[in-house]
Amino acid sequence: MDKSNISKPTLRRLPVYLNYLKSLPAETRTISATSVAAALGLNEVQVRKDLSAASKNGGKPKMGYDVEQLKLDLAEFLGYRDTKSAILIGVGRLGGALLSFNGFEECGMHITAAFDNDPNKIGTSIGGVAIYDIRELESFCRTHGILIGIITTSPAEAQALCDKMLKSGLCAIWNFSTAHLEVPEGVIVHNENLAVSLAMISHALEEQFNK
Amino acid sequence: MDKSNISKPTLRRLPVYLNYLKSLPAETRTISATSVAAALGLNEVQVRKDLSAASKNGGKPKMGYDVEQLKLDLAEFLGYRDTKSAILIGVGRLGGALLSFNGFEECGMHITAAFDNDPNKIGTSIGGVAIYDIRELESFCRTHGILIGIITTSPAEAQALCDKMLKSGLCAIWNFSTAHLEVPEGVIVHNENLAVSLAMISHALEEQFNK
Repeated sequence: MDKSNISKPTLRRLPVYLNYLKSLPAETRTISATSVAAALGLNEVQVRKDLSAASKNGGKPKMGYDVEQLKLDLAEFLGYRDTKSAILIGVGRLGGALLSFNGFEECGMHITAAFDNDPNKIGTSIGGVAIYDIRELESFCRTHGILIGIITTSPAEAQALCDKMLKSGLCAIWNFSTAHLEVPEGVIVHNENLAVSLAMISHALEEQFNK
Repeated sequence: MDKSNISKPTLRRLPVYLNYLKSLPAETRTISATSVAAALGLNEVQVRKDLSAASKNGGKPKMGYDVEQLKLDLAEFLGYRDTKSAILIGVGRLGGALLSFNGFEECGMHITAAFDNDPNKIGTSIGGVAIYDIRELESFCRTHGILIGIITTSPAEAQALCDKMLKSGLCAIWNFSTAHLEVPEGVIVHNENLAVSLAMISHALEEQFNK
């Protein structure tokens, strides 16, 4: 996409389209330019022109636009980068604890969504955070410009999920598993090794006794 | 107690008495020197003499020794200090997650017991760790020489529980609540502020974008 030739009014309307698409019920798979124009009070020809500037996946006759694809294209075009939100993978005990932890907001941070592969968890929520199918990870992260991912799975699953997160556009990983993660240069990994924290406290205690 | 005059054979037997007392069912409130001697294959007079060297709370005629008190006296006399174990207070989501986290053993650490005031939780266990009544905290910690306590309660309750922990002989606190804890000099406090960790990752991301 060539971003240099786009007009300022079009650029201002693109986030409006994206927000409208995000507000649609999940069942809405496709949408026509006519519907978008009607909903936003815009001219249909203008809508087509705007969308074609941001997305090479044009609307198909009688089918309209693929909603998910259009959301992805718009988010990518707009270069959405949300450094204050994170998604979490692995809604076990620790994952659930983090979702219901209400200290994050104090620091202006929040967990936007959680992902799991357990059908009993998908569709439910903890602490107000919805749990999605892991297969929706990439589409969710790209649409919302999420960059931070939290891994709270077992160490055995961690690397594969880390790879999946990077493929989904994430570039900072908060790793609660005890696995060592291999990542390309430039990716931020913060290891939250609770066992090491406890061992450090133990060590500090022993030092104090031996003073 | 004067520890200098105690004979070496007595000193070697004291941990044997303590281990035997710990093995008794919780219902055993009192025990006679006769029973201890019989169980351990020792001479009754010797048992009385040994125990009086370590505990000023002597056995009462027909009543015997108070088991809890004797365990406390023996543990204190022996100067038991366990720097590899911790107890946890507050079995909510985060507390439960830590109890079932099996990474601690890798670092030679473990959580020995958990405490709560919820009758529905007391008497149950998570991850093989028994949950006790918070009122048993001091007796448990002193008997087992526990020095490290983990707080996973709400910030509102944290300071009062921290004070209770210090009164129970603990001298290192791993604080998962967002409360700032006031402690006397010499007490080790390690604040595990998860919100700050997430904010630091966010900050590192922004730095990288602005490079």
